[in-house]
Amino acid sequence: MTLLRSWIDSANAPDCAFPLNNLPCGVFSVQGDSPRCGVAIGDFILDVSALEEEGLLQLGGHPVLDVPFWNELMELGPDAWADFRAQVAAFLNEGSPKRALAEDHLMPLADAVLHMPFLVSEYTDFYAGRHHAFNVGSMFRDPENALPPNWLHIPIGYNGRASSVVVSGTDVRRPLGQLKPPGADVPHFGPSKRFDFELEMGAVVGQASEGMVSVEQAEAMIFGYVLLNDWSARDIQAWEYQPLGPFQAKATATTISPWIVMAAALQPFRVATPPREVPLLPYLTEPRPMLYDVQLEVALQPEGGPETVLTRTRYGEMYYSAPQQLCHHTTSGCPMNVGDLLGSGTISGPGKAERGSLLELSWGGKEPVAITGGSRSFIEDGDTVTLRGHAQGDGYRIGFGDCAGRLLPAPALPDWAR
Amino acid sequence: MTLLRSWIDSANAPDCAFPLNNLPCGVFSVQGDSPRCGVAIGDFILDVSALEEEGLLQLGGHPVLDVPFWNELMELGPDAWADFRAQVAAFLNEGSPKRALAEDHLMPLADAVLHMPFLVSEYTDFYAGRHHAFNVGSMFRDPENALPPNWLHIPIGYNGRASSVVVSGTDVRRPLGQLKPPGADVPHFGPSKRFDFELEMGAVVGQASEGMVSVEQAEAMIFGYVLLNDWSARDIQAWEYQPLGPFQAKATATTISPWIVMAAALQPFRVATPPREVPLLPYLTEPRPMLYDVQLEVALQPEGGPETVLTRTRYGEMYYSAPQQLCHHTTSGCPMNVGDLLGSGTISGPGKAERGSLLELSWGGKEPVAITGGSRSFIEDGDTVTLRGHAQGDGYRIGFGDCAGRLLPAPALPDWAR
Repeated sequence: MTLLRSWIDSANAPDCAFPLNNLPCGVFSVQGDSPRCGVAIGDFILDVSALEEEGLLQLGGHPVLDVPFWNELMELGPDAWADFRAQVAAFLNEGSPKRALAEDHLMPLADAVLHMPFLVSEYTDFYAGRHHAFNVGSMFRDPENALPPNWLHIPIGYNGRASSVVVSGTDVRRPLGQLKPPGADVPHFGPSKRFDFELEMGAVVGQASEGMVSVEQAEAMIFGYVLLNDWSARDIQAWEYQPLGPFQAKATATTISPWIVMAAALQPFRVATPPREVPLLPYLTEPRPMLYDVQLEVALQPEGGPETVLTRTRYGEMYYSAPQQLCHHTTSGCPMNVGDLLGSGTISGPGKAERGSLLELSWGGKEPVAITGGSRSFIEDGDTVTLRGHAQGDGYRIGFGDCAGRLLPAPALPDWAR
Repeated sequence: MTLLRSWIDSANAPDCAFPLNNLPCGVFSVQGDSPRCGVAIGDFILDVSALEEEGLLQLGGHPVLDVPFWNELMELGPDAWADFRAQVAAFLNEGSPKRALAEDHLMPLADAVLHMPFLVSEYTDFYAGRHHAFNVGSMFRDPENALPPNWLHIPIGYNGRASSVVVSGTDVRRPLGQLKPPGADVPHFGPSKRFDFELEMGAVVGQASEGMVSVEQAEAMIFGYVLLNDWSARDIQAWEYQPLGPFQAKATATTISPWIVMAAALQPFRVATPPREVPLLPYLTEPRPMLYDVQLEVALQPEGGPETVLTRTRYGEMYYSAPQQLCHHTTSGCPMNVGDLLGSGTISGPGKAERGSLLELSWGGKEPVAITGGSRSFIEDGDTVTLRGHAQGDGYRIGFGDCAGRLLPAPALPDWAR
């Protein structure tokens, strides 16, 4: 696959995140207007809500873009998703006779405020990175038995908190929580001192299911992908997580990138999961490669200071793909709904500079990571953490847009908590 | 508090679940009509959606009962909840001048189909029963150290799956899942063989929050309570739950009773949590008793056979109240929303016949429980499990209505899972 050329010049630049090949789905507003659905193209956003309102886009026989979220298009299903891409591309491709119609509905990206692109029904977070699980297991358990016994058989996951999901650019406040540092006799209540990011991808479920679905069926239910930062309070987690898993440690915020990159845009970038160390049960076997070769990085920028890239890795490192995770999610008969969000799990590569969290990068805080003008064991107040990602094609890129959040100081301890 | 008398005779019977003191909120339909909001009174349902439509109930200046769920009334807040109860009571109390107006909108309970009474935003399940945690810890870990180290300090909870919540009367299908029985070298995929109930109460959050709330504020956010059966596949859970907690084991279904008993109806039944074994941190301290003295039982009925009551216990056994749980839930800044459901955790008393799950009653399957004409280690296909509960007042009861579900056989294994 090569670049699909648009009459919008900026979309044809080799390092543009949003060429005609991409057409990601977002929600934007300009100058305090009502948020509406848009598609990024080059340095612009195409106001597809307006196109639909004028009858220039027709999807499913009734309006689906008259709301500031993409769930209603998702509900229409994969054929409608493909039809949507074709209709939008017909406005934007080089030589399009519809150029003038589209020009009326283009906004400069730089002028737009981006909002949550979809209503999150429920949020599930997985733990599907082999290197991450090994690193964490080595630190907290035993390097000889770092992986839990079920890890190579099950895409381990837990339910997260959908209400915590926010769009890139939303400030995140350092949480309070119950903490019991090593050596303390009793817990105390106060600000987390080990607040961290986790580099993940999020899969957006676009179709509902009842009963169990196959990996093949699960893949067809996935509308698209976002970058996802699963902010994590390591000290809250360490004290709370046994025996029922992470709870408040992961509930402060989960930041996603503002554009849903549709699965269709990622088709040229399929890669297989790494070789199985033990055979998977038949229900989890992938009929074809179902990961995507997305290059990822995380940068940290102190308030007023320069940015340092902390890690670079690849989505292709994951041991389980989103369709495998979604299939497993339905095994018990668990109903899935439009707008469910599945976090991939932290994406770490094998190398030291490929680790997807500060916990791993600083090895539990023991080896602070150098940044320009300082070092970090965990995130400090005022730091902005930015996830970036793209799939590299032949002379073009499929980008996700920054997934960024700045850490604000913890709230004051209320009187009744002293 | 004594019985508040109604002109509906059946509401005045001492063993009636729905006297004027109760006024629980449900959603019902008759003969295939559209579901609408109703309040149970004696052997009848008062169609409050119709009363509102006719202008006879006025709440918040705009319709809130024109939808088949109670979330919109909840959103109005505690003053509106109290106003609602007063307005409804004014139709139903003995000697009411509005009797004729109400009579036009009474349906026999026996003719109604009951539906989910509210839209579940997110579902959190706790683990706050001292005896349950001790029993489970003794079985799976060590009787000497049965309670996890954090248990007496934190109301341990995990996020469940909101899409799994169903109303009483909904059949439940035995789940498939990944299983690794003791002694097996590798896992296999098949039907759960250790499917269980858990006797719980559910607290329905009726107000949203951002940032941390106190126990006092949390109490004011709770609209009401339901009975809750947290169906659990013990064998799926045993293999999957380390290190991130239960996932598919708890996702098949969660059954709630059809009537939300408003917190206001439970006020006369306040009881304190049991004495603290270690002091709680100040933020978790209750300013007054916040549990309710609700008598609970679970019955099991094989297909075509007689029912056996398996256990009888009390909500007052819980170590943490719902306001304490909700407060803890917000410590990290986790936003709570109208319609969030909090499961109390399994309610077991100290005695053998007071245990709130078959896992405990049969001690992990080792001591099958006698039922009329047989015995049970876990639930068998065709069994109906019914939770019942009421608070006992002076000559009246506040009942919840049955919380029942029948277990259907597991689905056939799909070809691609063989």
